[in-house]
Amino acid sequence: MAVNDKASIEITAFRWVPPFAEGLVRDLRARWALEEAGLDYRVRLLDQQRPPEYLREQPFDQVPCFSDGQVRIFESGAIVQYIGEQSEALLPRDPQSRYRAIQWSYAALNSVEPAILNLVGIDLFYAEQEWARLRRPGAEDFVRLKLKRVADWLGDKKWLEDRFSIGDLLMVTVLRNLRHTDIVASFANLDSYLKRGEARPAFKQALSDQLAVFAANQPEGALA
Amino acid sequence: MAVNDKASIEITAFRWVPPFAEGLVRDLRARWALEEAGLDYRVRLLDQQRPPEYLREQPFDQVPCFSDGQVRIFESGAIVQYIGEQSEALLPRDPQSRYRAIQWSYAALNSVEPAILNLVGIDLFYAEQEWARLRRPGAEDFVRLKLKRVADWLGDKKWLEDRFSIGDLLMVTVLRNLRHTDIVASFANLDSYLKRGEARPAFKQALSDQLAVFAANQPEGALA
Repeated sequence: MAVNDKASIEITAFRWVPPFAEGLVRDLRARWALEEAGLDYRVRLLDQQRPPEYLREQPFDQVPCFSDGQVRIFESGAIVQYIGEQSEALLPRDPQSRYRAIQWSYAALNSVEPAILNLVGIDLFYAEQEWARLRRPGAEDFVRLKLKRVADWLGDKKWLEDRFSIGDLLMVTVLRNLRHTDIVASFANLDSYLKRGEARPAFKQALSDQLAVFAANQPEGALA
Repeated sequence: MAVNDKASIEITAFRWVPPFAEGLVRDLRARWALEEAGLDYRVRLLDQQRPPEYLREQPFDQVPCFSDGQVRIFESGAIVQYIGEQSEALLPRDPQSRYRAIQWSYAALNSVEPAILNLVGIDLFYAEQEWARLRRPGAEDFVRLKLKRVADWLGDKKWLEDRFSIGDLLMVTVLRNLRHTDIVASFANLDSYLKRGEARPAFKQALSDQLAVFAANQPEGALA
């Protein structure tokens, strides 16, 4: 188990989130990368109501933040890339493979995730609103277009390039946001890809460690 | 002038786009970074209707792609970061400053741009639709919240960290997408920041080079 209160690496995470967000909060990305890299880390837990001074660490009031005594950063994409620098298992050394991995990291977060989070918002936060009802078909079409692009690229490859990298780690966590739908399942190769990512021991450990915190910090109201 | 048909660096760009997209197409990011780094480049122009094989270079059918004989990548964020590796003017060398710049690159593209492009879509592509009319106030509120986060962080600093970097380059190009609104202008420090970015000689050269291509390739119908 890589969670270790004496580790020099620290990430921030939430003490508890509602069930719809369990297993999706972005500290999962940092945890997964740290597990792949074999690095111990400790977790600083935050309440849903963050103290105002947290904005000086994370201007968007999100998790995770990362520090290791040398570097202090936020943004899960940057954190995963930084952890990748310390492990060839996540980020190859040769320039072409290295930048293909970084390219897919940006692609996951800028070319794919926005369409998916737009649909998640419609389904989970705005479902009762008229605009959401009217917009949903187009928003789903846009998600399907993006996923078709990724699926066509992937073809029968195991990973986006010739080996697992930070790009796959981020893409898998992006696709997981669609778990309330059957959209990923409608692309057979993408569905296998997602399952292949989730089957990695490092992913399973990271997910289990995130969920254990929420289970241990269940608010009283949520137990009822 | 850094556009040079004999350069070893090649980027892809569009031969022509409608006026609403002029100065916003993402090859501008690569051009700007190349100008800051003092690197010559050539441009491979694509028609709006890309050949099907372009998807093998750029699975999302977008511009720019980048190659320099050593590395061949897409995604403007990754391209700007790669160019940054070759120029301390864009990406500092010490680990903390380096990763703060990379962090802001991801922040621009994942924490800020999606909210902005959602509003751009509503205003420019879906304005006639009922859902867009109903959704616009909430979409604008979300953009304003994101911009407040950036503005609060920026305070009276010139750049997001202590010097200009790829993070600023990307953030400025992200903010430019709001030019059809007065939203940026309502945050005085962010407005100055945007203008400071656009006043850089490298930005002006990059913009002028992008616009020159469109002017030279105006379709006949658009002249009428």
